[in-house]
Amino acid sequence: MLLMLVGVRSDAALTAEERAAAERILGAELVDSQAFAILEHLTDRIGARLSGSVGAERAVAWTAERLTSDGLRARTEKVMVPHWVRGGETGEITAPIAAPLALTALGGSDGTPEKGLLAPVVEAFGLDALKALGPGKVRGRIVLLNHTMNVAADYGPLSSLRVQGAIEAARLGAVGVLVRSLSTLDARLAHTGMMRYEKDLSHIPAAAVAAEDADLLHRLLANGETVEVRLRLTCRTLPDVESANVVADLVGRERPDEVVVIGAHLDSWDLATGAIDDGAGVAMVMESLRLLRALGLQPRRTIRGVLYMNEENGDRGGEGYAADHAPQLARHVAALEADSGAGRPTGFTVVGGDGAVAAVAEIASLLQSVGADSARAETYAGTDIDPMRQGGVPLLGLRQDATHYFDWHHSAADTLDKVKPNELAMNAAAMAVMAYVLAEHDATLPRPAPAQP
Amino acid sequence: MLLMLVGVRSDAALTAEERAAAERILGAELVDSQAFAILEHLTDRIGARLSGSVGAERAVAWTAERLTSDGLRARTEKVMVPHWVRGGETGEITAPIAAPLALTALGGSDGTPEKGLLAPVVEAFGLDALKALGPGKVRGRIVLLNHTMNVAADYGPLSSLRVQGAIEAARLGAVGVLVRSLSTLDARLAHTGMMRYEKDLSHIPAAAVAAEDADLLHRLLANGETVEVRLRLTCRTLPDVESANVVADLVGRERPDEVVVIGAHLDSWDLATGAIDDGAGVAMVMESLRLLRALGLQPRRTIRGVLYMNEENGDRGGEGYAADHAPQLARHVAALEADSGAGRPTGFTVVGGDGAVAAVAEIASLLQSVGADSARAETYAGTDIDPMRQGGVPLLGLRQDATHYFDWHHSAADTLDKVKPNELAMNAAAMAVMAYVLAEHDATLPRPAPAQP
Repeated sequence: MLLMLVGVRSDAALTAEERAAAERILGAELVDSQAFAILEHLTDRIGARLSGSVGAERAVAWTAERLTSDGLRARTEKVMVPHWVRGGETGEITAPIAAPLALTALGGSDGTPEKGLLAPVVEAFGLDALKALGPGKVRGRIVLLNHTMNVAADYGPLSSLRVQGAIEAARLGAVGVLVRSLSTLDARLAHTGMMRYEKDLSHIPAAAVAAEDADLLHRLLANGETVEVRLRLTCRTLPDVESANVVADLVGRERPDEVVVIGAHLDSWDLATGAIDDGAGVAMVMESLRLLRALGLQPRRTIRGVLYMNEENGDRGGEGYAADHAPQLARHVAALEADSGAGRPTGFTVVGGDGAVAAVAEIASLLQSVGADSARAETYAGTDIDPMRQGGVPLLGLRQDATHYFDWHHSAADTLDKVKPNELAMNAAAMAVMAYVLAEHDATLPRPAPAQP
Repeated sequence: MLLMLVGVRSDAALTAEERAAAERILGAELVDSQAFAILEHLTDRIGARLSGSVGAERAVAWTAERLTSDGLRARTEKVMVPHWVRGGETGEITAPIAAPLALTALGGSDGTPEKGLLAPVVEAFGLDALKALGPGKVRGRIVLLNHTMNVAADYGPLSSLRVQGAIEAARLGAVGVLVRSLSTLDARLAHTGMMRYEKDLSHIPAAAVAAEDADLLHRLLANGETVEVRLRLTCRTLPDVESANVVADLVGRERPDEVVVIGAHLDSWDLATGAIDDGAGVAMVMESLRLLRALGLQPRRTIRGVLYMNEENGDRGGEGYAADHAPQLARHVAALEADSGAGRPTGFTVVGGDGAVAAVAEIASLLQSVGADSARAETYAGTDIDPMRQGGVPLLGLRQDATHYFDWHHSAADTLDKVKPNELAMNAAAMAVMAYVLAEHDATLPRPAPAQP
């Protein structure tokens, strides 16, 4: 019975009522959006929201309260999260010249000894080059993982330098690792982000350096001299603390147990206020729910907003949601995530069964006016919804023009001014229309094969 | 006799020999430039060069040595300079939210009390708006001087906010001043720069805040709440110290007492390595001299490179040169300065008598291939050469495409990577050709009316 409900091919055309609803959503959102005001409160008034911080807890409380006051059925769902704190961080070249380094600890890094860590530097362009150096050239050194990031699309392939760098460097006996910031703008900004350790390897301190500083180290090393760096990081990991996902339902009028999830992550890095990553996504979710409720558009199924905690350094929120709701995932008809900034919307990525892309494209055709009418198949649509793949939930990513996303991503410059109110509203409208039609349309998206856990 | 020599109208066409020399200069510089290597040493190996710092003194020593080894007659000429040191600097919003501010002290500012300066903020868009607020709204407050800088051309009109802000704020009883950074890029960078005090007014602490932080303060204030900020600056001004201009002559073959000065400033701000401001200009001057010497192009008159100390916070070098050489200025036939980065050269500004612009344009026509063939009349051609106006010296500014100059100017991001080697070489070639022909051509530029001292 369940399979009949959710596995049906979406070959029916959109109904006149669905088209009319889309018109109302777009019209209202593009004229009277509150998305930017939501984002302004979240970033200016609450600020940075790293898991375990006061800001994160204030964000949980405020968003739950605001969703409730907007008429949604809101609650928090407990998640235990890592509690990493940055502390102080300085670094400098001590030989062959004396020069300060613009750097920032990677999230999860251990600190250095109190007096600092002083060691010669060895450079590698990527992890393969590092491995090729071998322990003889790496032992006792600080590894500079350099690269040439030019455009946003380079982020994926290069992010392993940041995530795995400390592991691979420690394996060869390094005492620290500096990763060139993953960024498309040279503005002397250090871009932080998550890194990993392996249990049986030394937990060496890891920091991101600004592009300019990686270039300087490169030039000095290219001259054949010994280059020494001193790092002082007081970051540390404290015991896990309790936090929460914020979950808010616009309850469906006919099939309330069938759910379309729309989500974004509530936590942010600590260097700035997380406007593009992912305050913008949070604002899209909250605004979509507010708007549909305000317009009296109650679809057949439930639309559920989920503001995930801890996407940045643990994915505990996304994993927690999928685990806690495992029995219900068979009745989750879609999960949509927004986590690539607030540039103009461009369309949707889709992880689904045969015909899912075409069905999403048909709905997205309603969004041609805001440029969000593309749909393409992918094997991944977002970090927080990915665990729902285990339940065979069709996954959708709302895509944005990310040309400038990595200019600011994970840096001190991820602030409200980077978001244009009209572009944020276009995104909120795109999310609301997609969510509404997925929840209203009689047929549901073909489901992907459930991933192995 | 002197007037006959130097006051002649330049109506003679360029000679075949002059054209041939220009071809050799351009060809050699565009193929085998050493300008970038000079700049790399100055920025990477010596680094920041604020007046009074170790870096500044090392820059004096190294440039004099390098010019000597390149075959020029080099020397240092003593200049007493201010000695301002930055120390530590932090700031934060304490109400209605808690948020860190990205800021940097303005050069010349006094520090705050050791425990910091805590005060409510009042905002003004410019000095007129500040004055209009009156003492009632300013007394006891920290003034935020906000503005809307969009393009490089806004720098001139807006720089008075930074230079005069502390004076005008103190006049109304303010206890501190925050100036929105003068920048064309929002990258959470604070851009420093010179500020002034008036003797009989309170010397209130003055800092630049990043554009993002000025925006945040603006939004909080726009909400009608009391916004409080705490500043802690430990900057201070020490007694003047001895420094020097570096002066290097390519001695003229016929009229060695007649001089064409080419110059740039050797000092830089302390937040970065001063690649665009004004390491690039220094490299153009040193490279021009090296190249002419290497090519055996010894013109009729002397070409003198002057690397001025203390352009950034005192102009002592430029004033000192003009004062020390006052008796010789009548035989200075032109002074050319480069101090607007290393974007592609676009041509020359000219302060001269009737016909000077046409004469410069004629020489600049040799530079069409590198885009530096324009000449236009101005009342000012550069800070360091401006004092020579008192001696009636024709003044020329080598202009660059400054579209991105203020993205990095006076910030931590003014580093070598912002300079393209080929564009630097084009500038050096343009400077060398202009200097050579001015020093070689029989007629000299019409002189401007001497400015009143």
